[in-house]
Amino acid sequence: MKPFHPTPKTLMGPGPSDVPTRILEAMARPTVGHLDPQFIALMDEIKLLLRYAFQTDNALTFPVSAPGSAGMETCFVNLIEPGDTVIVCVNGVFGGRMVENVTRAGATAVVINEEWGKPVDPQKVEETLIAHPEAKILAFVHAETSTGVLSDAKTLCALAQKHFTLTIVDAVTSLGGVPVKVDEWDVDAIYSGTQKCLSVPPGLSPVSFGPRAIAAIEARVTPVQSWFLDLSLVMNYWEGARSSSDSGSAQKTGARSYHHTAPVNAMYALHEGLLMLREEGLDAAFSRHQTQHEHLRDGLEKLGFSFLVEPEHRLPQLNTVRIPASVKDEAAVRKALLEKHHLEIGAGLGALAGKVWRIGLMGASACPQNVDKCLGALAEELG
Amino acid sequence: MKPFHPTPKTLMGPGPSDVPTRILEAMARPTVGHLDPQFIALMDEIKLLLRYAFQTDNALTFPVSAPGSAGMETCFVNLIEPGDTVIVCVNGVFGGRMVENVTRAGATAVVINEEWGKPVDPQKVEETLIAHPEAKILAFVHAETSTGVLSDAKTLCALAQKHFTLTIVDAVTSLGGVPVKVDEWDVDAIYSGTQKCLSVPPGLSPVSFGPRAIAAIEARVTPVQSWFLDLSLVMNYWEGARSSSDSGSAQKTGARSYHHTAPVNAMYALHEGLLMLREEGLDAAFSRHQTQHEHLRDGLEKLGFSFLVEPEHRLPQLNTVRIPASVKDEAAVRKALLEKHHLEIGAGLGALAGKVWRIGLMGASACPQNVDKCLGALAEELG
Repeated sequence: MKPFHPTPKTLMGPGPSDVPTRILEAMARPTVGHLDPQFIALMDEIKLLLRYAFQTDNALTFPVSAPGSAGMETCFVNLIEPGDTVIVCVNGVFGGRMVENVTRAGATAVVINEEWGKPVDPQKVEETLIAHPEAKILAFVHAETSTGVLSDAKTLCALAQKHFTLTIVDAVTSLGGVPVKVDEWDVDAIYSGTQKCLSVPPGLSPVSFGPRAIAAIEARVTPVQSWFLDLSLVMNYWEGARSSSDSGSAQKTGARSYHHTAPVNAMYALHEGLLMLREEGLDAAFSRHQTQHEHLRDGLEKLGFSFLVEPEHRLPQLNTVRIPASVKDEAAVRKALLEKHHLEIGAGLGALAGKVWRIGLMGASACPQNVDKCLGALAEELG
Repeated sequence: MKPFHPTPKTLMGPGPSDVPTRILEAMARPTVGHLDPQFIALMDEIKLLLRYAFQTDNALTFPVSAPGSAGMETCFVNLIEPGDTVIVCVNGVFGGRMVENVTRAGATAVVINEEWGKPVDPQKVEETLIAHPEAKILAFVHAETSTGVLSDAKTLCALAQKHFTLTIVDAVTSLGGVPVKVDEWDVDAIYSGTQKCLSVPPGLSPVSFGPRAIAAIEARVTPVQSWFLDLSLVMNYWEGARSSSDSGSAQKTGARSYHHTAPVNAMYALHEGLLMLREEGLDAAFSRHQTQHEHLRDGLEKLGFSFLVEPEHRLPQLNTVRIPASVKDEAAVRKALLEKHHLEIGAGLGALAGKVWRIGLMGASACPQNVDKCLGALAEELG
């Protein structure tokens, strides 16, 4: 066994996306203590930068020290108490994972199934909200990574509010690629990942919780089933005994209490990635994703590909195309792309395995060079 | 806000420890996909290297994608079913955290309390095992990070086996610093962290599970309460549909199924740190920790410090000393060490807050330069 020197790949799958050198270099800076005042100040900056990304003033906005699935679990286990009812919209793999989270937390899941590749249907959601007035939470995936479909989060959140139901929103693939307006939509709990449109290595899960979610957590009569993800404990580390202040001044660091050891270097990378997003600006980032998506779409259509998702519901950052009938061994094509062209695209997941490819244009991967490389490599391999 | 360039510190607290440049550089290599065959091969090497570190042939040996607290939770939530009884030895903060894990998983904790700074008492453990034949698990901390005490894991595991009880062992601070013999002691479930004696940045938790633990997991009648930490799912990613083979050949990667996105770059760092441990050799690493501990101890005693823990139970990698009565403001001394000398030492935790300092000699931090620097800085600050 020898030190690992990976052959670099162009990452155009469903994440991780290409990580800019600037972020990798930030990650390699010297490790300092997780209670060092300079690290506490970094945490405060990360919170502010995440509020920018999530378009929120929520004080409780921070990265969970584990990948997106743990961010999902953080939302569910903190908001659910045994016996609760949760309406879950399932239009892909990640909605199904939400159901798993609900039932394992001792709640009843009322599932609204939708065809994979279609967005969540607001009418079905309203009917279900009316039929289940006992529901505490409405949960849905904003950007389904398994299909490339965008659901209308604004409308779905408004329906939940009309029926006095909390919302949990999966923004793993949407954050940084399309608008995620936590305050405007009045989302209660939302989670994301670092390895998609933020172009930061995988490992952390940004989350944000609004006032109604915090009130629900404070009103709990049962303990949160996970110690590691218990927000009442995590908050003492990230906020310092629930202090709502966040100016990062050194005096307040005394109030921080140890919960777990934060992934220090991963936080360096997230900080740098968020700085880059702010430098570019959210609107510029969204429009870059859209422009590159259009170039890729035009090229893919010329190659004879058709999209799984209707134009008005497509995620620019995740292009799911049907594999042409002429392709007899789709895994062999992906293998050739990876090994010959050093290009990673994504396979289909779940019910779509073998039927579609998922081509990501996430974060730094949404650039003309990647679009050209992908179209050229596909043209060559599909002959 | 600007890019973060931390002032480097010498890390002699309870972790993180100093991270060698070689490991930081490995972490900054280009991110590849978590299902890329070259990454799958890296995962296989990490499993082999972790078996070396844990001195085990357990196939189910891998790093959980989150810090040590999540490794702890992985052990408890997979082995416990609601209604079980778990005997927990508490001689510091981390034993207390185990109790939290037990009760949140719906089990009854039978607690054996021990004075902080003392090892777990085997006689009390045997009495409790006899009094509670219904106990499914005995859980204890091998190396208590809050006190610097080493408990006799071999004896405690033998007692558990005599009474047909599974063991969960916290080896967060012991792995790589003192012998951790999973197979010889016949440990059932064990977890550690990367940021202690492995000198890898925090963020991952190496775990290992033996055959009785796997049988208990397979015999479960209730689902694991955490989706993220459910070993039956995680294993499909790390082992490929529970294949016990681990030679890393490319053919088998087809069997791997996606569970969550692994923290790719953190795995690079762990791989490099484990390579360094294997290059040095376990025995050489243990003896280096012991030698540096003796130098530090001699110097600290000359400065008038006394140790919390009796010599025969002291962890070489974590030196807990009583703060001299002459020190009126212990936090100010630590602050001066950090800001003037760029040296981090640890405060007391829990009941020992304000009463002790914890001086770490973990991994790369266990070197003569660090010992000298620490003694010199303390001599200056204590006048």
